[in-house]
Amino acid sequence: MITVVGHTAIDHICKVPVFPERHGSVPVTDHKVYYGGGAANIAAGIAKLGGECELLSAVGDEFEGSDYDSWLTSLGVGKRFIVVDGKRTATCFLFNDEKGDQMTFFEWGASRAFAESEPPALDFVHMATADPGYNVKVAEKAGFSSFDPGQDLINYSKEQLEAIIENIDILFANHHEVRRMTKMLGVQEDELIGRIPVSIITMSGDGSEIHAEGSVHKIPVVPVTLADPTGAGDAYRAGFLTAYQKGYDILTACKIGTVSASFTVEVIGCQTNLPDWKTMSARYNENFGRLKEPETE
Amino acid sequence: MITVVGHTAIDHICKVPVFPERHGSVPVTDHKVYYGGGAANIAAGIAKLGGECELLSAVGDEFEGSDYDSWLTSLGVGKRFIVVDGKRTATCFLFNDEKGDQMTFFEWGASRAFAESEPPALDFVHMATADPGYNVKVAEKAGFSSFDPGQDLINYSKEQLEAIIENIDILFANHHEVRRMTKMLGVQEDELIGRIPVSIITMSGDGSEIHAEGSVHKIPVVPVTLADPTGAGDAYRAGFLTAYQKGYDILTACKIGTVSASFTVEVIGCQTNLPDWKTMSARYNENFGRLKEPETE
Repeated sequence: MITVVGHTAIDHICKVPVFPERHGSVPVTDHKVYYGGGAANIAAGIAKLGGECELLSAVGDEFEGSDYDSWLTSLGVGKRFIVVDGKRTATCFLFNDEKGDQMTFFEWGASRAFAESEPPALDFVHMATADPGYNVKVAEKAGFSSFDPGQDLINYSKEQLEAIIENIDILFANHHEVRRMTKMLGVQEDELIGRIPVSIITMSGDGSEIHAEGSVHKIPVVPVTLADPTGAGDAYRAGFLTAYQKGYDILTACKIGTVSASFTVEVIGCQTNLPDWKTMSARYNENFGRLKEPETE
Repeated sequence: MITVVGHTAIDHICKVPVFPERHGSVPVTDHKVYYGGGAANIAAGIAKLGGECELLSAVGDEFEGSDYDSWLTSLGVGKRFIVVDGKRTATCFLFNDEKGDQMTFFEWGASRAFAESEPPALDFVHMATADPGYNVKVAEKAGFSSFDPGQDLINYSKEQLEAIIENIDILFANHHEVRRMTKMLGVQEDELIGRIPVSIITMSGDGSEIHAEGSVHKIPVVPVTLADPTGAGDAYRAGFLTAYQKGYDILTACKIGTVSASFTVEVIGCQTNLPDWKTMSARYNENFGRLKEPETE
């Protein structure tokens, strides 16, 4: 069982011709609602790949019985929800203008409840972006844990980040996040990476770099037609974690993550185009050679 | 029966510390959903005051059975809806920062359907902000009609505005809108006002100015503690139209409009604090002397 901790959120993605001036009004020419939130994206990805997982999120009292709730149920995601009365599930309002610029308004809503909650001790847990204090406690209590800081790095104190780094087994981050973490901790990149057993650094179109046991490996991206990069990191983590828990070695698990991400970026929405294991395997075979069963130790 | 034509909309009012930079993200610290849309605000106001009214709006297929739908039913608003499959009811996203600046994103959604619809001939109609072409046809076919341009003046061509002015009996506008209309039509304010039997010009804290049959009257505002000016104009129109249809003279109807508006601005949300006739009458009596029954001709 993989537990994923963090946001379950509703993403409103809107197109506008331009952004409004102060006191101005602009028309929204397109508005679509997508299922999102880093933790929920990862849990959905794992479940779709056939992994056993549960999602530890704080949600509003409107969530139960919603379309999103039913969607998670249909995927087989186990729900370990903190239900917050009178609060809305975290909501992201995203406005894209015609020049390709983006403005994001993120409402934590029910996710604020993490701050006052006491996490359980978990065997195998991934911490996606959410409350720093809660994540520190999760990391301290966990058996095996992985972490991605996402856009919430700004909310972490140096001490909180130190405590996370101290306790995790795997770090997932993109190169911007790695740079930010080195600044926050006042260390070089090598030193940061040296503190964690495995670091998986994604570099957009340049693929990913895996640091494990003193060696570095690079894995290229799977070439696809890009529609929307949002959710690529979450899909990568879903693929990796599913494979890793099945017993695959780290490099194969990273390739499975890369292949999983390639589906997500082909379509708008983080959970719109999640592959099942068979679909993922077929694309894996085309790009990395035949995917075998994991070797049993 | 008063028919009100225009937007029924859902208002999302959000607080943010600052507005995001391009590609930036800011937290939403408060997010409340209110019932809105100019036409729906006016219809709700009329119904709450005990007037007989119907609302001609285009709504999405999710509207029927929604909380907003039930609210309109509870008030006794008659619904003459164009239901648009696969579209969302018009939605307004409003972000207020801590400096008091505001950014608005307005999604027409289902309201776009006005453009392809043929309006009925209506006896007594108020046209609130919505599709210019549709409103021109409404004005041309109507018995008695009033109009307020609201924030959609920008969508009118000179010809459309001319056609509206030509056909209406009453214009409601604030002084900004009057100035804009004179520019669009290339006329002086006197000339614009001279073309319409009755013009009611609201001037925020300075009350309203009524131009009718060549004379001008000023009505002061009713002093209250201001929480949110949004919806004041709609509440004024609701009060006026209810009174006017009951047979009150224009000046008394404007005073009833002023009193109705004073309730709306005391509380956030355009339909949050609508007065019933008795509540409105009590405040009328305190400010303008005893409200009598209308004189029958």
